[in-house]
Amino acid sequence: MSILVVGTVAFDTVETPFGRAERILGGSATYACLAARVIGAPVQLNAVVGRDFPEAHVASLTDRGVDVEGLVRDPEGETFFWAGRYHYDLNTRDTLATHLNVLATFEPDLPASYRTPEIVCLGNLDPTVQSSVIDQTDGSGLVIADTMNFWIDNTPEALGETLKRVDVLVINDEEARQLAGEPNLVRAARKIRALGPETLIVKKGEHGALLFCGDEIFSAPAYPLEDVIDPTGAGDTFLGGFAGHLARCGATDPDAMRQAVVVGSALASFVVEAFGPDRLLSVTAADLDERIDSFRRLSAVPHIISA
Amino acid sequence: MSILVVGTVAFDTVETPFGRAERILGGSATYACLAARVIGAPVQLNAVVGRDFPEAHVASLTDRGVDVEGLVRDPEGETFFWAGRYHYDLNTRDTLATHLNVLATFEPDLPASYRTPEIVCLGNLDPTVQSSVIDQTDGSGLVIADTMNFWIDNTPEALGETLKRVDVLVINDEEARQLAGEPNLVRAARKIRALGPETLIVKKGEHGALLFCGDEIFSAPAYPLEDVIDPTGAGDTFLGGFAGHLARCGATDPDAMRQAVVVGSALASFVVEAFGPDRLLSVTAADLDERIDSFRRLSAVPHIISA
Repeated sequence: MSILVVGTVAFDTVETPFGRAERILGGSATYACLAARVIGAPVQLNAVVGRDFPEAHVASLTDRGVDVEGLVRDPEGETFFWAGRYHYDLNTRDTLATHLNVLATFEPDLPASYRTPEIVCLGNLDPTVQSSVIDQTDGSGLVIADTMNFWIDNTPEALGETLKRVDVLVINDEEARQLAGEPNLVRAARKIRALGPETLIVKKGEHGALLFCGDEIFSAPAYPLEDVIDPTGAGDTFLGGFAGHLARCGATDPDAMRQAVVVGSALASFVVEAFGPDRLLSVTAADLDERIDSFRRLSAVPHIISA
Repeated sequence: MSILVVGTVAFDTVETPFGRAERILGGSATYACLAARVIGAPVQLNAVVGRDFPEAHVASLTDRGVDVEGLVRDPEGETFFWAGRYHYDLNTRDTLATHLNVLATFEPDLPASYRTPEIVCLGNLDPTVQSSVIDQTDGSGLVIADTMNFWIDNTPEALGETLKRVDVLVINDEEARQLAGEPNLVRAARKIRALGPETLIVKKGEHGALLFCGDEIFSAPAYPLEDVIDPTGAGDTFLGGFAGHLARCGATDPDAMRQAVVVGSALASFVVEAFGPDRLLSVTAADLDERIDSFRRLSAVPHIISA
């Protein structure tokens, strides 16, 4: 299956207790594309960059086999820029700067070759933009989308319209509670799925992820990492790895969804080991297989003699 | 294997968004004993109550087969009393009252029949009292203990002495971070295990539990509950269920520890369905088996074709 990824390509400046990285390659689409490419899924990228975006960064994507026909360079402006500082425990961060730049006027216009994707992977973007992307496809693809509290707060109606067209929504636990107006995650999941997404994934950071699919819930552990260097992009990497696994195995049944959550979690556990997306450029298939095996051991329940 | 449980037997007044229960049976030892009895482990209780403690509550314990030879009634005072109010999301609570009463002067003096337990299960108590209990046993039993932030803050030296003698420490994630002075749980676990406990269990409430045992980590999910009525006693129920499973299967190897974490989690998922320990009095072996099976399905990772 082919994946269309629409999201941001950005410069990030990141401060953590372990160091600082200045204007490195970032953005939701960057992480998602590279993650999907680690597992060999065909990926088409639609995003915008500015006149300041170096060819070397484009090459980082094309070298890994990302189709960049839909990567638009806007000569009128600068590339989207984000700066943030992570706190001591790495679970919370302050945004220091968000310069939308060319992203402010970005209106996706998909190349003809992008209009029949089997999976549409929508990074966190204005829900109106997300809807416009879905409009431009033939409508046969599985739509997987992220969103965030900003859109839940500020454009609830547009978000509601987009959600009706989303098959798999991937958000964090705080966003799920906020979107549903309900602290209990099981109840929140039911409310959110009634808005459109048949399948819901709730990411819980260091606590793993919950997959609500069909009548079942799958609780995926997080890999217990000792050396988290930079959490930026972990969620987008999860998204790309999740979509990449479904594309690779050509299935969207509940077992494939469970597998995809583990593959996405495994890739996310790599990306946080270094600043930016670097680790996604170096991780091998053997590394990934080994980590997937660790996930399995991590949550294996031995047979229990009944009470 | 027989289990000696030492902890509190109390009156609790509990307010949650769903109601209020006044002066109901509570206390760490109460929950731990009843949980261990659900799975048929022999349990000896050592605790103190006051002159106001009704025979009907004692009968709740003896009816379930708890040995109460070591349940001391102090005619000089009232039973330990705790009152608390849970917030909207049930993850946090305010303590409204703590009246130690007879607990303030409690010095365990084990009956002769209690001095050769195969498992010593120490609820959250003054670490000096926990050490005194260990002193009074023949020293051959597996020591499983709980503690809390109050002792970490106020009696770190006494707690340090007790920890040297604990085999399995069961604490929550906030306490683990505080005890180790380290936000990363994997690093925190290493530091805590260096203080004495060979095995560490970190309870994460709605996010499940982590077992650090030998060279492996086991991540147990929490059962996704829609109707949590009263979280009081969930941790103590986990403790009793964990000890009870080890006692029943007569093993303390890593597989038995993993199983015991699932059994403890399953019992904890029942107790929060009603105010106080009521659900532990009604849950059947068949209920427990069914829930253990749900835990297995919840975390089952289907085979993944390698990358």
